[in-house]
Amino acid sequence: MKAAFLTGLRKLEVSEVPIPVPSGEEVLVGLKSVGICGSDVHYYTHGKIGKQFCKYPQIIGHEPSGTIEEPGKSVKRLKKGDRVIIEPQIPCGECHWCRQGKHNICPSVRFLGTPPIDGAYSEYIVMPEKNLILLPDELSYEEGALTEPLAVALHAVKLAGDLKGKNIGIFGSGTIGLSIMIAARIYGAKMIICTDVLDYRLEFAKKIGADHTVNPKKENVYEFIREKTKGLLLDVVFEAAGNCDAINDSARATTYGGICIVSGIPAEDSVSLEIHEMRKKEFNLKVLRRSHNNVREAIELIKSKKVDILSIVTHRFGLAEISKAFETASEYRDNVIKTMINI
Amino acid sequence: MKAAFLTGLRKLEVSEVPIPVPSGEEVLVGLKSVGICGSDVHYYTHGKIGKQFCKYPQIIGHEPSGTIEEPGKSVKRLKKGDRVIIEPQIPCGECHWCRQGKHNICPSVRFLGTPPIDGAYSEYIVMPEKNLILLPDELSYEEGALTEPLAVALHAVKLAGDLKGKNIGIFGSGTIGLSIMIAARIYGAKMIICTDVLDYRLEFAKKIGADHTVNPKKENVYEFIREKTKGLLLDVVFEAAGNCDAINDSARATTYGGICIVSGIPAEDSVSLEIHEMRKKEFNLKVLRRSHNNVREAIELIKSKKVDILSIVTHRFGLAEISKAFETASEYRDNVIKTMINI
Amino acid sequence: MKAAFLTGLRKLEVSEVPIPVPSGEEVLVGLKSVGICGSDVHYYTHGKIGKQFCKYPQIIGHEPSGTIEEPGKSVKRLKKGDRVIIEPQIPCGECHWCRQGKHNICPSVRFLGTPPIDGAYSEYIVMPEKNLILLPDELSYEEGALTEPLAVALHAVKLAGDLKGKNIGIFGSGTIGLSIMIAARIYGAKMIICTDVLDYRLEFAKKIGADHTVNPKKENVYEFIREKTKGLLLDVVFEAAGNCDAINDSARATTYGGICIVSGIPAEDSVSLEIHEMRKKEFNLKVLRRSHNNVREAIELIKSKKVDILSIVTHRFGLAEISKAFETASEYRDNVIKTMINI
Amino acid sequence: MKAAFLTGLRKLEVSEVPIPVPSGEEVLVGLKSVGICGSDVHYYTHGKIGKQFCKYPQIIGHEPSGTIEEPGKSVKRLKKGDRVIIEPQIPCGECHWCRQGKHNICPSVRFLGTPPIDGAYSEYIVMPEKNLILLPDELSYEEGALTEPLAVALHAVKLAGDLKGKNIGIFGSGTIGLSIMIAARIYGAKMIICTDVLDYRLEFAKKIGADHTVNPKKENVYEFIREKTKGLLLDVVFEAAGNCDAINDSARATTYGGICIVSGIPAEDSVSLEIHEMRKKEFNLKVLRRSHNNVREAIELIKSKKVDILSIVTHRFGLAEISKAFETASEYRDNVIKTMINI
Repeated sequence: MKAAFLTGLRKLEVSEVPIPVPSGEEVLVGLKSVGICGSDVHYYTHGKIGKQFCKYPQIIGHEPSGTIEEPGKSVKRLKKGDRVIIEPQIPCGECHWCRQGKHNICPSVRFLGTPPIDGAYSEYIVMPEKNLILLPDELSYEEGALTEPLAVALHAVKLAGDLKGKNIGIFGSGTIGLSIMIAARIYGAKMIICTDVLDYRLEFAKKIGADHTVNPKKENVYEFIREKTKGLLLDVVFEAAGNCDAINDSARATTYGGICIVSGIPAEDSVSLEIHEMRKKEFNLKVLRRSHNNVREAIELIKSKKVDILSIVTHRFGLAEISKAFETASEYRDNVIKTMINI
Repeated sequence: MKAAFLTGLRKLEVSEVPIPVPSGEEVLVGLKSVGICGSDVHYYTHGKIGKQFCKYPQIIGHEPSGTIEEPGKSVKRLKKGDRVIIEPQIPCGECHWCRQGKHNICPSVRFLGTPPIDGAYSEYIVMPEKNLILLPDELSYEEGALTEPLAVALHAVKLAGDLKGKNIGIFGSGTIGLSIMIAARIYGAKMIICTDVLDYRLEFAKKIGADHTVNPKKENVYEFIREKTKGLLLDVVFEAAGNCDAINDSARATTYGGICIVSGIPAEDSVSLEIHEMRKKEFNLKVLRRSHNNVREAIELIKSKKVDILSIVTHRFGLAEISKAFETASEYRDNVIKTMINI
Repeated sequence: MKAAFLTGLRKLEVSEVPIPVPSGEEVLVGLKSVGICGSDVHYYTHGKIGKQFCKYPQIIGHEPSGTIEEPGKSVKRLKKGDRVIIEPQIPCGECHWCRQGKHNICPSVRFLGTPPIDGAYSEYIVMPEKNLILLPDELSYEEGALTEPLAVALHAVKLAGDLKGKNIGIFGSGTIGLSIMIAARIYGAKMIICTDVLDYRLEFAKKIGADHTVNPKKENVYEFIREKTKGLLLDVVFEAAGNCDAINDSARATTYGGICIVSGIPAEDSVSLEIHEMRKKEFNLKVLRRSHNNVREAIELIKSKKVDILSIVTHRFGLAEISKAFETASEYRDNVIKTMINI
Repeated sequence: MKAAFLTGLRKLEVSEVPIPVPSGEEVLVGLKSVGICGSDVHYYTHGKIGKQFCKYPQIIGHEPSGTIEEPGKSVKRLKKGDRVIIEPQIPCGECHWCRQGKHNICPSVRFLGTPPIDGAYSEYIVMPEKNLILLPDELSYEEGALTEPLAVALHAVKLAGDLKGKNIGIFGSGTIGLSIMIAARIYGAKMIICTDVLDYRLEFAKKIGADHTVNPKKENVYEFIREKTKGLLLDVVFEAAGNCDAINDSARATTYGGICIVSGIPAEDSVSLEIHEMRKKEFNLKVLRRSHNNVREAIELIKSKKVDILSIVTHRFGLAEISKAFETASEYRDNVIKTMINI
């Protein structure tokens, strides 16, 4: 089969490797659509996230959907031909956190496409049966792949607690930011203000539901938000830009007792935060870790037509063109928002 | 009357000023004991906290107890001679936050001894009747003054949520750290580990109830905690050192899904945090703001004898000796923990 | 001025009494619209609610809007001619609960139109300034009066916690039930199922947004809900029928770990609950008490046009016709939902 | 092997049956100590709990400890001779609730000794490996058996939320009530008041830590509690008497905004509750369902010596004397509190 290997900074090579064989409780899945996530781009451009370094050659990619090619012998729930979404995290199932159902913070979790585990930019993959969720007929493979970022957004929105009647900021309007916006809209936000340094993303945010948008390179975010909220400021900010300025902006632009959910992944190892602004407001900072039991809800939302998540896909490439796909995504070319690899 | 004015960095002068006169709903209180808080020391040594700068001459001090000298004409609940604790925050009472009972984050709050409001290092003070809480006969004036830091500790412990059966870290073992330790012990902590860079404070912490102590200048805090908790790490850390290293240590030494209550006041304007350590654990950082409706509970705890808060007072000075008192407190002289001004 | 006095069971008499005079911090309000609440109907038909008995003659009514006629001498925020909503509860402001901002459960609260305090079915009323909230120009007096039941609905929805993506039941589709439905829709409910024993109310519920409706006199509520939710049952039920059958239905029709907010007021003194059904599911029953700090949010929702609360007003009467109004409301005549007294 | 079969109301017969054989992931355990729970007594005296009826002959008992006799072929973690506690609930592991870690409300849970599943009053039992928890050397088999009711108590205490500085009532001072008292004491309760209709239980409660006790057959519980709490009433009541009067007492004796955790199992099918008392206080009633992930914490508490749970065992019988044991437990003979079957 063909698989795309990361072999160095900004180097992706498609090679031929043997098709893996599923053991008893595993399943061989033929991959169809795999999204490119901001974290994939980090591995592509920096070779690491925090202290997790790529071990070349490394397959990345963790937003896959596909079709079952061959179920292992002990597999009962699923059969050849079933369309499925792959839940990318494989928690240990036995630790203190797994027993409480918090699989996303299992210290022993293995996560698709995160070193040293290979990911999904390939023609086939083997996964445990319990990581496969049936993709309903009403959803396309691309929509299936999009349940992963939408699940992250749903987890973010739940970490934030009640959004009923609240003023919400989305700082960073890429895939995760826009997915959070969509979820926050459905789940009771009163006013939503989006930021981004790229104007085309702000235009898109407004088209799909933001009340107001502001570009921090062009305007004072705090003043803009103070005016739009009539001095009340924001109750909750979802930081989805992956940089420390956005976190500090969130401390300034939130109200007393406000909360910021850090949903982006900074390229830097540490961030410098204005602690006294946070202290004055009894600020609450929660740093999101992936998602948690949210794929089924993501499926239902897409099925309900309340959410048009497919609209965020702006670019599509085949597996052979994956280098071009990553260049497009990492360089913000051609008004890119979400890039999809269709295999 | 005599009052101590801050007139510059490390300059405190006692001068004679007129005794203030209470209006209808105000009360004139003759002050008896006023504690020195870490924030008072900040104003003394740095002239500011964050963006709050002293306007010299400035009276500081916000942990007072005393006796009512003269109630205003509309005062009904209290009478001359009553022994009282002064709640130092005067919230607006009408804003969004006050209506919800969150007076500690009222954006218009005025706080005793915080610029531009004068504080309590003086012989008399005028306060609104509603800021006075009766000091029971069983409590001394010093214990009355100590209800303020204990109330902060109780607020911290409540911000942290359930402590039942949890492993707790107290990073910084000064007055606030030790008060939090006392409160955490009573409220269900399983194991408590205290840190400090001053060994005499660690000895004191152990004497009054810490299970283990560690000096980050001498040992690796993370390794120490990993061993003592058999790899489970800490569920909750109360940072009470007022420095950014302690916050980063807390991210490293807490467990997955852990929480840090930042209770200290850093001298720096910003802190540099290891965001990927926080992200890996879905870390939650809450930055404490003073206290909130906790003085009555502090009184009850002291009355119950479950808490020997008085034991933390190591040094006592008169108002005339206030410069010496601040030098002692700011330079950590003579194994100082809590310094009290008795007037 | 004219005022309507309850003088016995089902007896309302309009008499002439002196216009009250506001003291310093009070305000004389000329009343314009006052809604009839289910609890008013209870006093009309039963003379009591639980252990609160009417002391005849008694003025009832607690959903008023009006215009300021004469502010007291110390009133500063408001002036003659201002259009206002009257918040009907006057909490003590000093107890344990008031200090926490939970004014709705103040044990010493006085509540408009609840014995022994008179209410608002009269031409004028005197209220403390802090009970008056400005009615924006965009809202009519009737909409002003409707903020009271909408505030109760918002409180109910908040007591229920997160509604994100949940299946919701509204058991009883009168004013409170429909207001809760409107609020739950905005605040993230996935599916809403309404019940009522009156078909015209179910039709109305469906018209303004219910996904499904069922009449418990005609169908098995549990089976209906099981089918519509594909076996998942309801996550949250808002009981708004004021009877014990609805509470038991809620225990049966909710899912494991489900919650019921008892929002209705039963005529009976006690209710008989199927405790083993509740035990099997670790059921949570919360009994709502009025509302809490929600009028401003109700105003904003109506202003935003997301909510067409006015559509529930089906009948309007003058003060002179109040007996007819109460007969209509208490006998469910002419497809009545909400009845308004316009003065 | 010998096993005790319930064959009718108040009929227990010990018979010989074949020793069961463990399949691959199962383990054969030789039972040592099995406690008698109030629910076992219900099956003995009433033949049912709610709608769960015994199907005779039925083995009951769900508080067992023992030694591994034979591990199945796929068992890796445990070996012959290991001392173990048996977690009695076998959740499905795949449903909505199990995925969230809420195994105690799994609708498909199978529970040891609950019809139609057999229990543990026998010489041997086969259980899935994942239901076995290692019993540390420091704990006796009886202490191992007692982790089950202590785990229920810990779950109750967690359902109640924060107990910091609160006044607590324990209504019913049998095994569960006393276990809750022990847990509440450790986890921050301020004052604990226990009730029971049996004076010897109140004496015992006082001996092991209750601040006050009251017998509802001899005194007015509400007045007693009002006096002891100086009018503040109780913040949280744990009903552990299994009768509806205790629940109503809890509504009367709790403060505004209070909560009652129904931990007892009533013999009746339904309970009659004073809804207006509950409404006035915005009362919150949670009906406990077994326990949830608490056995390890129970073990740690017993190991820590903070808890002397063994002191509640007042009677011990062999398997051959099980009829006498149940007569003792069901008739409250000889000052019985906890009865243990040692095999």
